[in-house]
Amino acid sequence: SSEQVINYFGHHILDRAADKRKNPQWISQAMKKSDSKYIIISELRPLTLTSGHLSSGFMKGKGKKLCILSYEDISNFLDSKPTPPLLFLGIEPILEPAQGKPLDRLGAEGIPWFAVDLTGKFEDYDQAAKAFHPEAEFLSADFRSAMVLPETDAAIYAQARSLLDWHARYKFCSTCGSPTRMEESGYKRICENQDCSSLKGVHNTSYPRVDPVVIMLVISQDGRRCLLGRQKRFPSGMFSCLAGFMEPGETMEDAVRRETFEESGVRVGEVHYHSCQPWPFPSTLMIGCHAKATSENIKVDKEEIDDARWFTREEILLMLTGQHKDGFFVPPPQALAHQVIKAWAKMPSNL
Amino acid sequence: SSEQVINYFGHHILDRAADKRKNPQWISQAMKKSDSKYIIISELRPLTLTSGHLSSGFMKGKGKKLCILSYEDISNFLDSKPTPPLLFLGIEPILEPAQGKPLDRLGAEGIPWFAVDLTGKFEDYDQAAKAFHPEAEFLSADFRSAMVLPETDAAIYAQARSLLDWHARYKFCSTCGSPTRMEESGYKRICENQDCSSLKGVHNTSYPRVDPVVIMLVISQDGRRCLLGRQKRFPSGMFSCLAGFMEPGETMEDAVRRETFEESGVRVGEVHYHSCQPWPFPSTLMIGCHAKATSENIKVDKEEIDDARWFTREEILLMLTGQHKDGFFVPPPQALAHQVIKAWAKMPSNL
Ligand SMILES: Nc1ncnc2c1ncn2[C@@H]1O[C@H](COP(=O)(O)O)[C@@H](O)[C@H]1O
Ligand SMILES: Nc1ncnc2c1ncn2[C@@H]1O[C@H](COP(=O)(O)O)[C@@H](O)[C@H]1O
Ligand SMILES: [Mg+2]
Ligand SMILES: [Mg+2]
Ligand SMILES: [Mg+2]
Ligand SMILES: [Mg+2]
Ligand SMILES: [Mg+2]
Ligand SMILES: [Mg+2]
Ligand SMILES: [Zn+2]
Ligand SMILES: [Zn+2]
Repeated sequence: SSEQVINYFGHHILDRAADKRKNPQWISQAMKKSDSKYIIISELRPLTLTSGHLSSGFMKGKGKKLCILSYEDISNFLDSKPTPPLLFLGIEPILEPAQGKPLDRLGAEGIPWFAVDLTGKFEDYDQAAKAFHPEAEFLSADFRSAMVLPETDAAIYAQARSLLDWHARYKFCSTCGSPTRMEESGYKRICENQDCSSLKGVHNTSYPRVDPVVIMLVISQDGRRCLLGRQKRFPSGMFSCLAGFMEPGETMEDAVRRETFEESGVRVGEVHYHSCQPWPFPSTLMIGCHAKATSENIKVDKEEIDDARWFTREEILLMLTGQHKDGFFVPPPQALAHQVIKAWAKMPSNL
Repeated sequence: SSEQVINYFGHHILDRAADKRKNPQWISQAMKKSDSKYIIISELRPLTLTSGHLSSGFMKGKGKKLCILSYEDISNFLDSKPTPPLLFLGIEPILEPAQGKPLDRLGAEGIPWFAVDLTGKFEDYDQAAKAFHPEAEFLSADFRSAMVLPETDAAIYAQARSLLDWHARYKFCSTCGSPTRMEESGYKRICENQDCSSLKGVHNTSYPRVDPVVIMLVISQDGRRCLLGRQKRFPSGMFSCLAGFMEPGETMEDAVRRETFEESGVRVGEVHYHSCQPWPFPSTLMIGCHAKATSENIKVDKEEIDDARWFTREEILLMLTGQHKDGFFVPPPQALAHQVIKAWAKMPSNL
């Protein structure tokens, strides 16, 4: 299909303006601009405000949005010791961005965005939130909580959350064990040991980690059914696509075949990329695929999976809307799995 | 397109049999089987034998193949101290694998493959190689040298090389700085510090790294030209696809747009996945795409790129075969860039 699918966490409006990261003078001017925007994160929890009522997906109730602060609002925190980590997220174009042109930049005219990590700066989250705004609240750091954000806020939070999680887990140099420090406005960590080989040449140890994961809807040979599984931690009744981490020296297509066979015993032939999703829990790239089975018998890997079954297209259409007679359902629209499943269910013909 | 493209380094014949990695008893029996196969690697250099004459690609001259050894051939090394790192690579099916069915496994009947890392075990590479086989030779560790391997050997080397490079760079825990040790037959590293938080729950710090990189052929709005660039380290006359590392919280499609704009100043709209390639230098997943430009003017980022230009389809057809009048050419068929470029050049119509 030539349609471009954008998934939740993927609706970016910022130009990342990577060239500015290495320019401390530009960054410090941008920080002080009166229209610059700051988001606050603490222990990966974003500071949010209540927004309109949300009824889509499985997150019923009040929606949230990022609480946007100005330099003035947070300058006392920026000056506190130890200096809180600061990420430069990018520049928001003042013109409305059109799809396919998300990078249009107006340089000095755009609005710089920053994320400030206040982990460890306070004890009481409610009290700290209220000090920023009477209606502010720290969301939980889990993925379900994030799914109440508007799409463009979710993408900005995804970027900041993945980076901050990386900084939290990668405080030491994997090559020599010495402490590392944040550089390039949050996009690099450098070893403090001057003799470390990681300082000679370019090494992935200094850069943020993004782990590719394949997530696949396997379609039966006759094209009428698809294969879904349940992880043990899923809510009861929920089925989703099989998925797994890619391994070194592997293609996406082989990873789909390997993980499907490992988890369900089903063999896969053809694989087709559908769309992808940045998943900031902590930092994976979910690669959504449709795949064609070449066998049928299921043999569930009981270590990873609770159950796996073939479902007809008719069942899937009911599961997408929560109307399946046995109470089965699939993840909400914010999940890539939902979109990959829906795309197949709505396909007029077989794969 | 519904055709499945498999690129160099991606022609896997082994079932990785991941369940066996955690089964030391199975591994130690498999190691001693008379038909088990061992490859030797030292400082990322594979032990090879000379095979037939090679004339495809830009690697003219003698082809190489992996030197396959038996348990007997290397048991004295396996017993030496310090114990050399050993990777379990997978099981070779005895039946000829058909495309799309690379995972067919015959359990105990298949042939287990291992890689042994002899880094530091000898000083003279030539002498060490000859001790294994009178015609054996250690290839260099760079990507050009690897490109003389037969496709299925290249895929096995890719898997082993990426893993060994990870073990070489990740000897310390990024969470606490303590030493780590290899586990699960080479697919995990565990922190030696019992109190480390990386031992509680699942953390990416313990698993091999795979860095997704987008590599794209950008097509002009009229569909008649494509955009290629030169990195400074390229041989003179060579042009290739633009490419760049994906960042946290980003989609593949946005990464294509961002890197194209950063490196060439050209705007991109639609993006279509073509095929991918594991690139074991050291451990990236190259994601090959076709992309549609929405602007034309080139503004080269001189830090990263030497030159970038639009080429007509006619020029590209000549560059693919080394017949361009100005001596321009593209990377060899083993490179994903070549395949992504060729696929467009041979397309009858516009994208
Ligand atoms: N980068 C990674 N991050 C977390 N877990 C990983 C990673 N790579 C491999 N794993 C393992 O993969 C398991 C999940 O299985 P799967 O997602 O099906 O591959 C985890 O429990 C880990 O043991
Ligand atoms: N995982 C990574 N490994 C190596 N270099 C990286 C990585 N992530 C970002 N980089 C940076 O990306 C540069 C190459 O640019 P590009 O491939 O166009 O993104 C390198 O010189 C590094 O500064
Ligand atoms: Mg799995
Ligand atoms: Mg897995
Ligand atoms: Mg899984
Ligand atoms: Mg770049
Ligand atoms: Mg880059
Ligand atoms: Mg680049
Ligand atoms: Zn170091
Ligand atoms: Zn540790």
